[in-house]
Amino acid sequence: MAKEARDTAILLISCEDQRGLVAEVSFFISTYKGNIVVSDQHNDSSGAFFMRVEWDLADFTIPREKIVPAFEPIAEKYGMKWDLKFSHIKPKIALMVSKYDHCLFELLQRHKSGELNGDIVQIVGNHRDVEPLAEYFDIPFTHIPVTKSTKEEMERKEMELFDSLGADLIVLARYMQILSPDFVNHYPQRIINIHHSFLPAFVGAKPYHQAFERGVKIIGATSHYVTSDLDQGPIIAQGIAHISHRDSVEDLVRKGRALEKNVLAQAVELHLNNRVLVFGNKTVVFE
Amino acid sequence: MAKEARDTAILLISCEDQRGLVAEVSFFISTYKGNIVVSDQHNDSSGAFFMRVEWDLADFTIPREKIVPAFEPIAEKYGMKWDLKFSHIKPKIALMVSKYDHCLFELLQRHKSGELNGDIVQIVGNHRDVEPLAEYFDIPFTHIPVTKSTKEEMERKEMELFDSLGADLIVLARYMQILSPDFVNHYPQRIINIHHSFLPAFVGAKPYHQAFERGVKIIGATSHYVTSDLDQGPIIAQGIAHISHRDSVEDLVRKGRALEKNVLAQAVELHLNNRVLVFGNKTVVFE
Amino acid sequence: MAKEARDTAILLISCEDQRGLVAEVSFFISTYKGNIVVSDQHNDSSGAFFMRVEWDLADFTIPREKIVPAFEPIAEKYGMKWDLKFSHIKPKIALMVSKYDHCLFELLQRHKSGELNGDIVQIVGNHRDVEPLAEYFDIPFTHIPVTKSTKEEMERKEMELFDSLGADLIVLARYMQILSPDFVNHYPQRIINIHHSFLPAFVGAKPYHQAFERGVKIIGATSHYVTSDLDQGPIIAQGIAHISHRDSVEDLVRKGRALEKNVLAQAVELHLNNRVLVFGNKTVVFE
Amino acid sequence: MAKEARDTAILLISCEDQRGLVAEVSFFISTYKGNIVVSDQHNDSSGAFFMRVEWDLADFTIPREKIVPAFEPIAEKYGMKWDLKFSHIKPKIALMVSKYDHCLFELLQRHKSGELNGDIVQIVGNHRDVEPLAEYFDIPFTHIPVTKSTKEEMERKEMELFDSLGADLIVLARYMQILSPDFVNHYPQRIINIHHSFLPAFVGAKPYHQAFERGVKIIGATSHYVTSDLDQGPIIAQGIAHISHRDSVEDLVRKGRALEKNVLAQAVELHLNNRVLVFGNKTVVFE
Repeated sequence: MAKEARDTAILLISCEDQRGLVAEVSFFISTYKGNIVVSDQHNDSSGAFFMRVEWDLADFTIPREKIVPAFEPIAEKYGMKWDLKFSHIKPKIALMVSKYDHCLFELLQRHKSGELNGDIVQIVGNHRDVEPLAEYFDIPFTHIPVTKSTKEEMERKEMELFDSLGADLIVLARYMQILSPDFVNHYPQRIINIHHSFLPAFVGAKPYHQAFERGVKIIGATSHYVTSDLDQGPIIAQGIAHISHRDSVEDLVRKGRALEKNVLAQAVELHLNNRVLVFGNKTVVFE
Repeated sequence: MAKEARDTAILLISCEDQRGLVAEVSFFISTYKGNIVVSDQHNDSSGAFFMRVEWDLADFTIPREKIVPAFEPIAEKYGMKWDLKFSHIKPKIALMVSKYDHCLFELLQRHKSGELNGDIVQIVGNHRDVEPLAEYFDIPFTHIPVTKSTKEEMERKEMELFDSLGADLIVLARYMQILSPDFVNHYPQRIINIHHSFLPAFVGAKPYHQAFERGVKIIGATSHYVTSDLDQGPIIAQGIAHISHRDSVEDLVRKGRALEKNVLAQAVELHLNNRVLVFGNKTVVFE
Repeated sequence: MAKEARDTAILLISCEDQRGLVAEVSFFISTYKGNIVVSDQHNDSSGAFFMRVEWDLADFTIPREKIVPAFEPIAEKYGMKWDLKFSHIKPKIALMVSKYDHCLFELLQRHKSGELNGDIVQIVGNHRDVEPLAEYFDIPFTHIPVTKSTKEEMERKEMELFDSLGADLIVLARYMQILSPDFVNHYPQRIINIHHSFLPAFVGAKPYHQAFERGVKIIGATSHYVTSDLDQGPIIAQGIAHISHRDSVEDLVRKGRALEKNVLAQAVELHLNNRVLVFGNKTVVFE
Repeated sequence: MAKEARDTAILLISCEDQRGLVAEVSFFISTYKGNIVVSDQHNDSSGAFFMRVEWDLADFTIPREKIVPAFEPIAEKYGMKWDLKFSHIKPKIALMVSKYDHCLFELLQRHKSGELNGDIVQIVGNHRDVEPLAEYFDIPFTHIPVTKSTKEEMERKEMELFDSLGADLIVLARYMQILSPDFVNHYPQRIINIHHSFLPAFVGAKPYHQAFERGVKIIGATSHYVTSDLDQGPIIAQGIAHISHRDSVEDLVRKGRALEKNVLAQAVELHLNNRVLVFGNKTVVFE
């Protein structure tokens, strides 16, 4: 990490495990005078292979726009599912929020500190509460209220907005609406949510109330990609906090806030640094 | 803690919250020249009151056997559910195990180091694997194998054994049998189990396999009192460990071992130090 | 906690341990129809006694302004050092900052969310970087630059400002100036600092660089009361984060930010809730 | 991890960073039909390069004893410091202890559970306290008492014993003697110690007493390679536990025990799995 200064390319690869994969990929890079900065790989017990390799473009002899066609024959040979990213291209991020502002704050502050490897280009709220915050940080805010009857139309409006901006990632920073399968499927592995429980415990509504009722001694927060199954998507990051009988539901909510915002920010950073690979309903996170 | 050297009495009280409770209890103690060592209380949002008060018996003018009748009028006045414990009376502990020995080891070693405020008087195994360990620590071991058809009889045998020894606490140190409601109800709030998940996630069998399948980033262990609802009893202590995609099910099992034994030992110590009060399906833990 | 709704009084007591202390204090409260909400006490091994007792004022028959004289005879009898606080009186907080804004952000956001049991009345910066943030949150900002030659004068100016506002607590939210003994002694146990290391490791300047050089696997942050000995004051709260060889100094700084702001906010909340008692160079924290 | 079933080779490499390193090493392996199981590398900001690559030997066409000469030309070309390990060769471990047995217990139990990728071949004690434990686990125990006047002779005796057994690793499981530089230099990066503090805080004797005096809110334990500078060697692993004003020195000692044994066992496992590379006074730990 903290190789921000360098201009790098990142290959994300998943395929069936085969001999020679690491060698062939790293040979390709070094042949064209790329210097590998980080290389991580993982062999799943089921025979799946995952790789993330990042190299310095300083002396790399293939121009950026020609790397894809140059690598394609290797990808085909091994049947790879793959992606090429460049560190100098900052993904565009859209945030969706309701009334709570703690997650929004955290992301905006990290963005301002230069910690987020991406650009926040839009905030959409189904309430207007966070509008002044958006103004302070100089990020466009659009109010799109949602009711049962307008939901379909409003989601269409949101998709149009996000697509017109070229949003790469949508972050639900405590957005209190369930998104339709249409919306979710329009952004596969591109919507990150924060659920305020240690999933799979306390799925659904009011997890802190559920935790309080059950009398657990630890609460959690889970950040995951959104799929059409509520709270069932691939988990990116989780965090916990210790609690006791002295904590009321309100205390859980308060302690949970610090947890939620940090776990969400962590997941967003991992995604933006191209460190997350999804397979089935799980993730490989190359930290 | 670490007031082991002193000879103390401990009152555990729960009742409806009323004015003057703390004053009356502490006044009772000081009137008879007891010096309060620790006093903790908790007011539940539902209006319940819990108190744990421990005092030095050195100058206390009421003899031990007369404290109960002396306190009874106060208890009646406020409708208290209460219990009196003495630090010099070591509870007797029976351990139930199957084949895994890591939790057993931990408890036996802490016992030997003088960390457990109780005496391990018996180990029962439904297998013989841990017998040499029992021998090394010089604790009686009884082999009571259990099959579907013999379960009722074997549980009766176990109850007879435990009752004849005057066992105060039964610890299931990874005991892989489900106990019958008859057995459980015979030892209310006196059986402590360790479940190898972060309850209420992954109830039931093979929680590490479930955790692996779900792709969580944190695993947990939960120690709780056993009730007739499987894995639903009041939680005493929980702990967690971080995991990643690199961890196979076997790694989870291995990392879980360190977790399980520490969480179980922690819960047993809290119970033995009379720090746990049960109400409904939850606990107040006065640490 | 989360008893915010109630109007309560809080007694903070320290003295030599003596029989009857808890009884006398709680008897005093119940005699005048106060209902104890939380009562905590601690007996130090050196023979010191500490108590924090909070009671509901709803039916309390002594008016607020007469509680001090009413309790004084008890305090004198036992030689108590004591303090009386009211939950409805919000302490006034002044923040001192330099250029970093992450701790400031955190405190301002918690303040806005109603989490801080106090009022932020002033921000002083020796740089102007955070001025827009102060404006957004509608808190007065004063720029008081400090140089070697102007330090004495500037500190006098700061003291005048804080005293004119009646500031109860001064929080150094990553304020990069060492305060003079005169300033520090003017606010005994009323200045809280965040040091970006796990004290007493890495005292002084550039602790993340020191941590990087030493090759530690865990970094920390420490919040403490400021005394005239640099980084030696009584510790209120500490937190840690795991790091690895992959983390550069810049990564430590970044990971440290999340740590610092949370540990500082935690310490400030504990102080504002009157949960911290100082004795010698240590604290009793009644959580 | 948990690739125990496979027969693998592991290359540990450190050298100056140069283009083509990863490619050349992985190409070497795949050329001879080795399938890479895990490959990790790290580029230090100072320009140092570290690599750990593990491959399946099942179809590898170079016999084990010829891998070293086959790889040597590559190593020379890049000026590598390197080491070759085989998963089927279990390192031999000697344990040194005094009176405390908790770390010893932990290591022996993990050994017995098959968790340690090595064989404990000898226990040396400067006291006889743990002899029965050694017997139970069926590990040879030798009593080598040490006094000021006999220290040199006794260390010679220990070295003779360890060398005659071919000990690869010496673990100080709370061994309360300071080893001479002669002894230490005889086993470079082959002696692992557990220090009962969060180094570099509380170097030297009685760290829990020091921690108690300072009033910290977190205690730690540090496992490191032993060098001739006391408590200054390269850190492998660290862990922490939260404490409060309620904890006496004895409580710290007790809580520290659980910490020490887990951190030490973790470091020993990392070393045995060839996951630790030392450079200067720091470590790269490929987890």
